[in-house]
Amino acid sequence: MPGKAPDEPEPFEPFPVLESEHVYASDWCSLRRDMVDLGTGKPQEYHVFEVPDAICVVPVLEDGRIMLIGQYRYPHGHTHWEVPAGRISAGESPAAAAARELAEEAGVRPGELRELPSFYPINGISDHFVHAFVATHCVQDDSHRPDDSERLFARAFEPDEVRALLRSGRMRDAFSALCLFHHFDLEAADAANDQP
Amino acid sequence: MPGKAPDEPEPFEPFPVLESEHVYASDWCSLRRDMVDLGTGKPQEYHVFEVPDAICVVPVLEDGRIMLIGQYRYPHGHTHWEVPAGRISAGESPAAAAARELAEEAGVRPGELRELPSFYPINGISDHFVHAFVATHCVQDDSHRPDDSERLFARAFEPDEVRALLRSGRMRDAFSALCLFHHFDLEAADAANDQP
Repeated sequence: MPGKAPDEPEPFEPFPVLESEHVYASDWCSLRRDMVDLGTGKPQEYHVFEVPDAICVVPVLEDGRIMLIGQYRYPHGHTHWEVPAGRISAGESPAAAAARELAEEAGVRPGELRELPSFYPINGISDHFVHAFVATHCVQDDSHRPDDSERLFARAFEPDEVRALLRSGRMRDAFSALCLFHHFDLEAADAANDQP
Repeated sequence: MPGKAPDEPEPFEPFPVLESEHVYASDWCSLRRDMVDLGTGKPQEYHVFEVPDAICVVPVLEDGRIMLIGQYRYPHGHTHWEVPAGRISAGESPAAAAARELAEEAGVRPGELRELPSFYPINGISDHFVHAFVATHCVQDDSHRPDDSERLFARAFEPDEVRALLRSGRMRDAFSALCLFHHFDLEAADAANDQP
């Protein structure tokens, strides 16, 4: 891939904030309503949804297979394939959260944990940020113990099966699909760099 | 790619809902707090953030270049590269919303509009759903008129520059990165199918 990535765009000036209040606050999530000055002379309402940052991690076993979890998601009611993910606890590092979720959701211990590109899942309305990882040389152990609020099970798939799932359009969880695409893309980059 | 995509996992039974109330409601977004029965005997609180569904669209010009927009995002304060996106208005189809955002944000009219895999950006806490598209044979016109609340400008890049941007990890808007990965992946699938 011979292309050069564009430089970042010249930053715009932030909107001046005229007022800010929480219309809802809880330990789990909060909702803020700001009044901002767009330069139009009329204050504009802007909602910001606040939730703790999260991690998302692709578990790769020693034999190269990838662990997916079949998970029920209450907000839309579907059960589908994802990779382990979850919010970062207070005082916890992103890497520690990834190791914890690997154990809880996929029942594996990571060999090596490598950062993938991180992302804002919904940056029009939230600064929620997801730290992405790939865990290689994972070893299955008996630590699998989902939270009470989780309905899920883990299963290992060949990388080509996971690629086919992405291509099928049925992997509808954005965290999972984006982490997996980044993982496969960086694997391809590594393979290209290894060529003589 | 010889892999077969896994079948969908066996669906779990949904959590029975004991109570449901909106702790905040507005035209822009709402926040619901449900009490659900996880089968543990103790009601569990579950928040669901409600926002209208959205579209995200990759604009490809006649000459193959891809239009990106340099956009300021109020929730995190950064200006970065994205593809056009926005919520679907009441009564509007996803395709019509995509055409509208292409005009407003990228200043282009689509030739052909094709669906990409759609996704839930944050399905642990919201059923918010994004309909993704690629618009090919786009023609630039003078319809560029961002909303008052938008600070953005459009620029065309070679596909390899956009691939390099994805690989750099600096495309941190999940809508954009995921749509672009799906677009490049399906292009590669089409190219493979065309081979004799």
